[in-house]
Amino acid sequence: MQLATSRDIDDYLIAPDPTAARLQRVVSGRDQAGVPVEVQVVEERPLTIFLNAREIVTAMTIGDYPEYLALGFLRNQGMLSRTDRVTGVDFDEELETVVVRTAQETDHEEKLAKKTRTSGCAVGTVFGDMMEGLEGLVLPEASLRTSELYTLAQKINRTPSLYLEAGAIHGTVLCQGDRPLVYMEDVGRHNAVDKVAGWMLDTGTEAADKVLYTTGRLTSEMVIKTAHMGIPILASRSGFTAWGVEIAEQVGLTLIGRLRGHRFTCLSGDHRLIRDADPADVPQEDKKHRRKSADKD
Amino acid sequence: MQLATSRDIDDYLIAPDPTAARLQRVVSGRDQAGVPVEVQVVEERPLTIFLNAREIVTAMTIGDYPEYLALGFLRNQGMLSRTDRVTGVDFDEELETVVVRTAQETDHEEKLAKKTRTSGCAVGTVFGDMMEGLEGLVLPEASLRTSELYTLAQKINRTPSLYLEAGAIHGTVLCQGDRPLVYMEDVGRHNAVDKVAGWMLDTGTEAADKVLYTTGRLTSEMVIKTAHMGIPILASRSGFTAWGVEIAEQVGLTLIGRLRGHRFTCLSGDHRLIRDADPADVPQEDKKHRRKSADKD
Repeated sequence: MQLATSRDIDDYLIAPDPTAARLQRVVSGRDQAGVPVEVQVVEERPLTIFLNAREIVTAMTIGDYPEYLALGFLRNQGMLSRTDRVTGVDFDEELETVVVRTAQETDHEEKLAKKTRTSGCAVGTVFGDMMEGLEGLVLPEASLRTSELYTLAQKINRTPSLYLEAGAIHGTVLCQGDRPLVYMEDVGRHNAVDKVAGWMLDTGTEAADKVLYTTGRLTSEMVIKTAHMGIPILASRSGFTAWGVEIAEQVGLTLIGRLRGHRFTCLSGDHRLIRDADPADVPQEDKKHRRKSADKD
Repeated sequence: MQLATSRDIDDYLIAPDPTAARLQRVVSGRDQAGVPVEVQVVEERPLTIFLNAREIVTAMTIGDYPEYLALGFLRNQGMLSRTDRVTGVDFDEELETVVVRTAQETDHEEKLAKKTRTSGCAVGTVFGDMMEGLEGLVLPEASLRTSELYTLAQKINRTPSLYLEAGAIHGTVLCQGDRPLVYMEDVGRHNAVDKVAGWMLDTGTEAADKVLYTTGRLTSEMVIKTAHMGIPILASRSGFTAWGVEIAEQVGLTLIGRLRGHRFTCLSGDHRLIRDADPADVPQEDKKHRRKSADKD
């Protein structure tokens, strides 16, 4: 497979580190012929996220950037609003907990308390809250050249990552024009995008001129998270769900899926796309990437 | 692609129905060249699961077999024990709810109430409870011939499914010997396996002589669910996580991953495998399946 050029890697503010010892482990087993084999598998750890005194959720994560994961999760669930002032984010590796502290008790904690009194658990409210934040949301106007989209996909596919090494992992990349900026990976369903959201919150990064790329499916939850982040364009190499498309249209998100080699499908917000590239000029994806991508779930 | 023979389909007690109108929708969009296209995408709906009077979770599901999903979810989370007597499972399509009723209040509801008073939300306990049920669990002895394993994979790959048609979906198949019995699909992370568990609970099906096949990654949660179901062998075309392997060894589960064509890797419980097939005799997977499998997440 063609490797990333230093130029590709230099693009990143945060690139994956497939060599980090904490993120992978070698496990012994046997292959189809009974021959002993050593397989590199990704780590997976529980991380319990607290909002002030309240336990919110236990996420299964690969374990890097726990503070970004906690911040991004709470923000993307609508549990942290733009007005909430975060006074601290404390990660305890031994207890496997992250506590996010705010200046005042958040409105979500009230909701949680109310909900708790009525039904005894707030899990069911989480989704409702996510939709709640979206009423009247208008995503900023923006445009993306297909030449930039193709360049992004090629750079990301060439970037050394756990996804390419071990598979069985998700990748989400925050991009600007044809430049990938922050590439997060995780074994958990939506942790990768939450870590990107946490980084944006922590660094106060502008969302209006960004593009979000994900290896994962374009489900309602992925679309809602992207909208919460204020990013107007979401691209994926994977497929769509009907509700994901519906919500994208509702909030005016540009939704690009099945991005492989020169092919892609846009099912919402096509007006933001400028088709300046000739698909015929785009090289096919190499086999290795296609194979690895089958390893995800 | 070689289609399923009627013999393959006849094997199933429940086979996927990719033609069911409720499960897919045609959405219009544009391709890379700006040409209008119509794409078939899978549905995705919220389903809120109640245990007696308690709201437990809102799952995102494709929408088929909601009763099995609710039963299986509660069982696999350890919220329904073997001793709990289920007196009713009521699905309300309009409200998008399923209520599972038991003769007595379950021990989980007590736990939930206690937990609720302390932390205000029970989400964080869910995972703890799942592990809880596993102490001292011993999975039954059993054996699987690799000839049966290869036959299963070929039958399943040839079975018409949403996975082959639209991608962006998970499949889980309950199998016995070389015969696939119940093939559930869902867009949600673990719904497919929960629907199988619900079917087993509802039909009182024996687990000791079964094999579970999944298109999804072998994460800790997938391994824990399989153990809760009492199934001794779990096989997947996808990869592993370190914790998934650890828990499989702890409970004595046979864990087979990266099952593609003649290749597979066994990282736990290899003693249950009888290698009676010559891998060289196993045909390569066809391209179509490999491509579609990349659509999952």
